[in-house]
Amino acid sequence: MPHFADDLIDAIDQKATPVCVGIDPVFERLPEGLRRGREDGPAARVDAIFEFVMELIETVAPLVPCVKLQSACFERYGPDGVHAYYSLIEAAVSRDLIVIGDAKRGDIGATAAHYAAATLLDPAAPAGEEDEEGGDDLAAPDAVTVNAYFGEDGLRPFLDLARQESKGVFALVRTSNPGGDAIQALRLSDGRSVAEAVGGVVAELGDEPPYLGESGYSLLGAVVGATRPEDAARLRTIMPRQIFLVPGFGAQGGGAEDVRACFNADGKGAIVTASRSIIYAYENQPTGDWRDAVAAATRDMIRQIAALVS
Amino acid sequence: MPHFADDLIDAIDQKATPVCVGIDPVFERLPEGLRRGREDGPAARVDAIFEFVMELIETVAPLVPCVKLQSACFERYGPDGVHAYYSLIEAAVSRDLIVIGDAKRGDIGATAAHYAAATLLDPAAPAGEEDEEGGDDLAAPDAVTVNAYFGEDGLRPFLDLARQESKGVFALVRTSNPGGDAIQALRLSDGRSVAEAVGGVVAELGDEPPYLGESGYSLLGAVVGATRPEDAARLRTIMPRQIFLVPGFGAQGGGAEDVRACFNADGKGAIVTASRSIIYAYENQPTGDWRDAVAAATRDMIRQIAALVS
Repeated sequence: MPHFADDLIDAIDQKATPVCVGIDPVFERLPEGLRRGREDGPAARVDAIFEFVMELIETVAPLVPCVKLQSACFERYGPDGVHAYYSLIEAAVSRDLIVIGDAKRGDIGATAAHYAAATLLDPAAPAGEEDEEGGDDLAAPDAVTVNAYFGEDGLRPFLDLARQESKGVFALVRTSNPGGDAIQALRLSDGRSVAEAVGGVVAELGDEPPYLGESGYSLLGAVVGATRPEDAARLRTIMPRQIFLVPGFGAQGGGAEDVRACFNADGKGAIVTASRSIIYAYENQPTGDWRDAVAAATRDMIRQIAALVS
Repeated sequence: MPHFADDLIDAIDQKATPVCVGIDPVFERLPEGLRRGREDGPAARVDAIFEFVMELIETVAPLVPCVKLQSACFERYGPDGVHAYYSLIEAAVSRDLIVIGDAKRGDIGATAAHYAAATLLDPAAPAGEEDEEGGDDLAAPDAVTVNAYFGEDGLRPFLDLARQESKGVFALVRTSNPGGDAIQALRLSDGRSVAEAVGGVVAELGDEPPYLGESGYSLLGAVVGATRPEDAARLRTIMPRQIFLVPGFGAQGGGAEDVRACFNADGKGAIVTASRSIIYAYENQPTGDWRDAVAAATRDMIRQIAALVS
């Protein structure tokens, strides 16, 4: 039976880069040609975003193993936006990309089971039903981000459904924003930070044998923002079997040393994601095809990460 | 300009009860008559859930000031489910209920702004656009639950949009599930629990003057699960100006003393929510109209809470 962690590691090997392109589309920042005539009304804006992301997927699919779609950017357009989200996931999956749905859901056990179904299953074919051949062209992502503040019973429904469906989960451990410190960096009486305690819960749960793949990695990974190298190194020690999804490289200011510390000694175990610095790369290059600017920025990031990890 | 906290306190006064009915509809638990012939396919299930919730709203609207819709139960049906969610919110708002969207979103600042728009604005008329008269009958809730793990810059976009739109936000501080302890009850080096530290961030941010209403309460409230009375009492002291949304009474086992400790000394400042013990009350009464069982369970809870708070 396929396993998410094994599949992700294979995909990273095949493309020879642990880079993920984060797709956080914002109408106001789309290339002018895609925006023109579509300012009025949410439906037209969703059309523009849909077209932009389809082109993005085509552009980056030959280069990277993985894309991450930001659910919020679609949800703000209501049901139409949600439809576009699942439809674009289908497009990315069909191009052999591993797709992470960045939904950051989380709740207590009973509700977490609904969110697991909502985020990990094709909405046209929920729990136990078969999707029809040539159906509505919606698909669920291969993995989803979740909030771990609820502890074990909030995570378990995601893990069990992920195992059953050969999918993955990334629990938020350390976020890359400035405000995260006010909670995540607090010191516990035992000397650990709150983020390290959350990492401990994630490791204990994710390392149960049913969740481990042949690669030794768990289907439960961790979101570890590129902040301070020493923090990342400690989290790496606490969670050796979690694949780290590392945001914050590029526009958010994460740097080389922080990112290096997120990898295991063998250069595996992490995937680095950048969104705005790649998908809006054309903003710095007012002439030429915007897709060329995106491809160039992607290649540039691949080179930077290769230099770090090798 | 109207203010969410003032409006909620007025609504509680008018109905003379601080009770909120939580609407977490699960197809398998609907009354048999609503399920019949609708087992196959998500669209038919959404129809059944829609009809159930419309009846629930009619049943409880004369009794309580507030309902809370569980977004996860709708999201699991994809775009159709999301459409039903906003459409049912419109139905509840039009019956003068205060409506809380229980979406528990949260992310870093830039993305939090998208989630704020997604959860607090009518999806047919996002940011800055006017909803058309007699439009598509969708509406946004009056308030939304958010996850506070990201700290200030994750909360701020919700607060600023809420202020602009006269809406409210409830930040998760203490959840009512067993697993929550593994993180929220951890002791910091300064003696506080993690939940108390989160409560401190919430109070500091929510008590900035622009967010306070004439009632003295902030548009930023707090979700405080009914767990241990001493925990609730400490959180009450830390957050005097936050309205507490208190889940866990009823099916989750929260008891009287825990709930009492969530109110301020004047009997204000909290709203108690119960979901499964009310909306599935007919499961214990196999004969008779299911709506009568729901109404009876609602009245029973209103009496229990009145006995506690008076």
